[in-house]
Amino acid sequence: MIKKLNYGMVGGSLDAFIGGVHRKAIAINENAHLVAGCFSSNADKNNACGEHYQLASDRIYKNYQEMAEAESAREDGIDFVCITTPNFTHYEIAKCFLEKGIHVSCEKPLCFTVEEAKELEKLSKEKGLLFCVTYTYTGYNMVKLARELVAAGEIGEIINVNCEYLQDWMINTLEEGTEADTKIAVWRADPAKSGISDCVGDIGTHIESMVSYVTGLHVKKVAAVLDTYGHELDLNANMLVELDNGCHGVFSCSQICAGHANGLVVRIFGKNGSIEWHQEAPDQLYLKKKNQPIQIYNRGYGYIDGRAEELNRIPSGHPEGLMIAFANIYQAFTNAILKKKNGEELTASDLDFPSIEYGVRGVEFITAAVASSKNNSVWTEL
Amino acid sequence: MIKKLNYGMVGGSLDAFIGGVHRKAIAINENAHLVAGCFSSNADKNNACGEHYQLASDRIYKNYQEMAEAESAREDGIDFVCITTPNFTHYEIAKCFLEKGIHVSCEKPLCFTVEEAKELEKLSKEKGLLFCVTYTYTGYNMVKLARELVAAGEIGEIINVNCEYLQDWMINTLEEGTEADTKIAVWRADPAKSGISDCVGDIGTHIESMVSYVTGLHVKKVAAVLDTYGHELDLNANMLVELDNGCHGVFSCSQICAGHANGLVVRIFGKNGSIEWHQEAPDQLYLKKKNQPIQIYNRGYGYIDGRAEELNRIPSGHPEGLMIAFANIYQAFTNAILKKKNGEELTASDLDFPSIEYGVRGVEFITAAVASSKNNSVWTEL
Amino acid sequence: MIKKLNYGMVGGSLDAFIGGVHRKAIAINENAHLVAGCFSSNADKNNACGEHYQLASDRIYKNYQEMAEAESAREDGIDFVCITTPNFTHYEIAKCFLEKGIHVSCEKPLCFTVEEAKELEKLSKEKGLLFCVTYTYTGYNMVKLARELVAAGEIGEIINVNCEYLQDWMINTLEEGTEADTKIAVWRADPAKSGISDCVGDIGTHIESMVSYVTGLHVKKVAAVLDTYGHELDLNANMLVELDNGCHGVFSCSQICAGHANGLVVRIFGKNGSIEWHQEAPDQLYLKKKNQPIQIYNRGYGYIDGRAEELNRIPSGHPEGLMIAFANIYQAFTNAILKKKNGEELTASDLDFPSIEYGVRGVEFITAAVASSKNNSVWTEL
Amino acid sequence: MIKKLNYGMVGGSLDAFIGGVHRKAIAINENAHLVAGCFSSNADKNNACGEHYQLASDRIYKNYQEMAEAESAREDGIDFVCITTPNFTHYEIAKCFLEKGIHVSCEKPLCFTVEEAKELEKLSKEKGLLFCVTYTYTGYNMVKLARELVAAGEIGEIINVNCEYLQDWMINTLEEGTEADTKIAVWRADPAKSGISDCVGDIGTHIESMVSYVTGLHVKKVAAVLDTYGHELDLNANMLVELDNGCHGVFSCSQICAGHANGLVVRIFGKNGSIEWHQEAPDQLYLKKKNQPIQIYNRGYGYIDGRAEELNRIPSGHPEGLMIAFANIYQAFTNAILKKKNGEELTASDLDFPSIEYGVRGVEFITAAVASSKNNSVWTEL
Repeated sequence: MIKKLNYGMVGGSLDAFIGGVHRKAIAINENAHLVAGCFSSNADKNNACGEHYQLASDRIYKNYQEMAEAESAREDGIDFVCITTPNFTHYEIAKCFLEKGIHVSCEKPLCFTVEEAKELEKLSKEKGLLFCVTYTYTGYNMVKLARELVAAGEIGEIINVNCEYLQDWMINTLEEGTEADTKIAVWRADPAKSGISDCVGDIGTHIESMVSYVTGLHVKKVAAVLDTYGHELDLNANMLVELDNGCHGVFSCSQICAGHANGLVVRIFGKNGSIEWHQEAPDQLYLKKKNQPIQIYNRGYGYIDGRAEELNRIPSGHPEGLMIAFANIYQAFTNAILKKKNGEELTASDLDFPSIEYGVRGVEFITAAVASSKNNSVWTEL
Repeated sequence: MIKKLNYGMVGGSLDAFIGGVHRKAIAINENAHLVAGCFSSNADKNNACGEHYQLASDRIYKNYQEMAEAESAREDGIDFVCITTPNFTHYEIAKCFLEKGIHVSCEKPLCFTVEEAKELEKLSKEKGLLFCVTYTYTGYNMVKLARELVAAGEIGEIINVNCEYLQDWMINTLEEGTEADTKIAVWRADPAKSGISDCVGDIGTHIESMVSYVTGLHVKKVAAVLDTYGHELDLNANMLVELDNGCHGVFSCSQICAGHANGLVVRIFGKNGSIEWHQEAPDQLYLKKKNQPIQIYNRGYGYIDGRAEELNRIPSGHPEGLMIAFANIYQAFTNAILKKKNGEELTASDLDFPSIEYGVRGVEFITAAVASSKNNSVWTEL
Repeated sequence: MIKKLNYGMVGGSLDAFIGGVHRKAIAINENAHLVAGCFSSNADKNNACGEHYQLASDRIYKNYQEMAEAESAREDGIDFVCITTPNFTHYEIAKCFLEKGIHVSCEKPLCFTVEEAKELEKLSKEKGLLFCVTYTYTGYNMVKLARELVAAGEIGEIINVNCEYLQDWMINTLEEGTEADTKIAVWRADPAKSGISDCVGDIGTHIESMVSYVTGLHVKKVAAVLDTYGHELDLNANMLVELDNGCHGVFSCSQICAGHANGLVVRIFGKNGSIEWHQEAPDQLYLKKKNQPIQIYNRGYGYIDGRAEELNRIPSGHPEGLMIAFANIYQAFTNAILKKKNGEELTASDLDFPSIEYGVRGVEFITAAVASSKNNSVWTEL
Repeated sequence: MIKKLNYGMVGGSLDAFIGGVHRKAIAINENAHLVAGCFSSNADKNNACGEHYQLASDRIYKNYQEMAEAESAREDGIDFVCITTPNFTHYEIAKCFLEKGIHVSCEKPLCFTVEEAKELEKLSKEKGLLFCVTYTYTGYNMVKLARELVAAGEIGEIINVNCEYLQDWMINTLEEGTEADTKIAVWRADPAKSGISDCVGDIGTHIESMVSYVTGLHVKKVAAVLDTYGHELDLNANMLVELDNGCHGVFSCSQICAGHANGLVVRIFGKNGSIEWHQEAPDQLYLKKKNQPIQIYNRGYGYIDGRAEELNRIPSGHPEGLMIAFANIYQAFTNAILKKKNGEELTASDLDFPSIEYGVRGVEFITAAVASSKNNSVWTEL
């Protein structure tokens, strides 16, 4: 029985942030070894990273095509690849590894067009490969609990949603003519690299994926107004949404809201109660049953069961943090691969990671929001 | 020099809630006596209330027309009338007292149509009468501070607004066939009494008035989706707005959000910072300057000046609460009347109460929001 | 059947803070008229205040002795007196009115010595007079609920208490040689006026009274360390306590804790759960049952009954604030007087205001804490 | 130049919690390999753990003595040992490795008696070895900032401290005769294994170490009351303390406070301001300067510099959590070892981890607190 996997990485040189998070999250789980990589198009960076992780020199690849080719040919080739390159390269890289029969974990957004997204979805299904799109926040322990409370009917039929994701890291770019402004303007000026949306693409999709994950409902149409403040792409977006059960709600995302670091807030309202969760205080979940005192669930307590109990890693009251949310996603993804390798049947509960369907819906959502905003905020179907 | 006023009240019998709040707020200020009233169309209730306040028997009136007539004819007649009757009667009562030359304080929403609202506005201006529409929340101490910080440029040009007013007191009416449902359905069924909107009319306008008060900007157009859940009128609304400086934002109001008692939250985002205020914790104001730690202003401290200092009534750390917010509005309103009576000039700062312009804009906002929602959420100008 | 009372006031001229709060709290209840007073030893201030409230000129008294004499002789004399003079005068004034058969409401601390306190207690009981010591915070709606939850056994046997009352208004006096320092030093230098304790006397007793009120348990002994920082009296105190059921706990009070305006926090721990209440957010009460999610009770909701429901004045989510806490105390006190006047029997539940026993215990607590601190923090019985 | 270390572990088999946290924290830093271990006295568990980490079979040791002997003799022997065994074994194991010239990281409390603690301190100094006692909470990013703000004089001279560490995981043992009660009673009954204190030893020392770390001041004497509720050892403690600058304060720790999971709260009050930090929301730090609005520092923002900036690992708004606090401690510890190995001079700032002095003071504090409680809470010097 196989207990450990081999994996490779595309992107994520030592100076890149998110690649390191993926590696550390996987390391925390202690069930996969990094054995191959193409960490950078810069040869020095590529080698430095490979050597840091003591990779065999022939498994530090010059490009991802070679890597996919060589690894798929090896007996001890990688079981999955982790793609943490810039967004505009996701599609081709993912496609390449899928074609070689390798499972894929990929950063979000999945790609730039709905067509590409659906092609990857089709390909992964045809090949019977697992494809994880790392919508990190779905990995938090208490988000699991939220999902289960909603599924158990604790808040009843869903009738309103009010979610937001507010940041402020781009606010200094609003001052015209400053260094921050110029730097970002150049970087954002090439649509080939940045896609059709900045803010909705980067964080609006986190809202969309969280609502899907927690409620099982999906956005059906959106009426959006995006603000660019003179930049090429959006830095702020306010959106009305309609979910596929007919309920309405509002999504707001922004990169220019002073004082908000990473304020993802999910609030789901049902006929019998509501739930509320804040990414910046992730170990608490509010359940507000109608006609009852508000309840605060605290991660790690004995009154919690289901996935939140299974995934509990640190005693209650000790913040688990982002890294463990990431690790939870990888745990489900890698365990599913292990089960496949060991010939076990995968059940629905084995697939508790954001799948390629989340990736596809994300791209559909971005596309519809941008279209709506360009068309006078008219309701636009996904 | 006159130091005390006489006032009368229409509506507000002993069993009515909001009338009592008006009377107590005025009593706290200790500068106006209740001397006349028409508290109810029910004679017993009317008399009971008048006697409770030891009114002269000839100043307990059978109807408001008589009251306006008689009081305007007396040497010692009322200086202002306080109207706390059901919404559908505001227009005619206010008009009647204005025509008799009596200053008016009236509950919100001011009336049902923009035409009526503008007529009252025109009339009060022609007659040189003060007209206060009691948007209570503008009376809170820290809201004054918010207004002054914004005016002083502390947050810079305003680029986004995100406000909400969530309640849950109507959630039990969502269960069809229950007593709560039936009772509310009957009451809400007569548009003549309830106007064109329930939720937006009742609380959505509070959001609109607060944004006007704090920023000096007004809503220019709205794209709204209202939810009735099978009722005659809206119980929930999500709205995109555009202010007259071109900035966008979102307003959400609801009467069915479980666990939210009276959750008015005002968040205004500027190029240099943002402010945040919660009605349920009204003595604190958050100022979030970009690139700086978040600051919490606490009512009553020496580092606060301006109107917030002037109006400070209780030492810091002792919650002032709703009644004092109400009293603050009446203090400005009655002081302005006293100045007029004493022949003093009124300056802009004397008029720090929500004027009839707030009433007019409120009705315009309701009208536009309802129209937008009926027209597929299209952007609708006020 | 009598529905309204007459009352008089000693102290509380127009420029005095706490006297005004008493009057406004009573006014909110609408069941007692101010008809007599000796508001200041300064004749002008005394008259100005009396005239402001339109008192008959012969009921504006030059001194409290005259007032007690004259009012007790009148047919329509005052039913109760409200004493809001400096602490060092409470004893003699209260005694004087009790001797004349007049019910008393008095600011805390009741007086300076246990002997005086017990004398007032004895006198009031012999005369069958009601005596309210205005420990304001016992009047908050949710404190009533806390008391009832504890009495109902919701948290089980009490095994630990952890309470604090932190302020910072004296912090500027710590800078030697400043104006603030000098001013306060002079004022505090005369023990005849300030008693044996500043901080414990002023706010430590609030902690003690709240614990008594909420739990029904009383402090049996205390081990205290008081800090004066070079002043005459204490500005800071940390205390171990033992309650009469043997449970231990800690009380901390301070006037020099920067950033704490009026931070009274009551936390009571039982074998089955705990409760927590914050004066600065008084409309919420936390109930933390063991092995269950934390519950937040929000004032005004239908799931609350008992005294908290009876006293509910404003819909949930609209902060009631300090003034209404004060009004709640006066409502119980005046209703009890009315019942007496109307010949009705008083039950225990009619006496839901802080009685003279609270006043006596307060003085005992101050005395023991000061003695302990002077005696190397040795455990000292009350 | 050496960039990676080898380390070994005593204790921490796969089913042990805290050992795993140490390993993962070290793994996150990516600068030390686990190469040797004696994970359990149970041979199967020992081997399973060694194999899981792919250790050479001759480096999975039967006992720690053998391990110290063999590793110290190897050219490529371990650079440091990580001791995560039960508390009663710390002393002998630490001593053994120190004698063999190996740096030590050890769980807290360091040992049971002040004599043993001082012996380890002396030994490590004589041998020139680094000794880290893993007081985890000193590793949090914002605690570093707190320390630096205090050192920079932001709050001025320290005049009061108020700290607590409240948990509830032992509350079920209060029910006599239950399974929880019996189990815990047996486990706690042997003083040889559990030492002289449970609650103060386990978590009270965290308070003491945090105050030392943040303020640079140390507890000079303590007046404590410990509660056992019928158990062998304390489950609850309230303590008055005096620091070596003469300032007083209060420490409370408990394992039976319902609803408190891991509530370590540090509040330090100075003449010019105060700081406040909550372990359950570790990415925020409150700075409350006198006469100014309260400030909230949020980890990761550009306005933060010093150690907090250096150690920042994840962008602001993404909770770092306990694991990274642990990793921060190991980063300082291992970097210091690396510097030593590379022949570099160690400066004070290289030693930003809780040293053996913290371990000694911890044992002194426990000893004094227990003695005070047994002696009627008399002030007891450390």
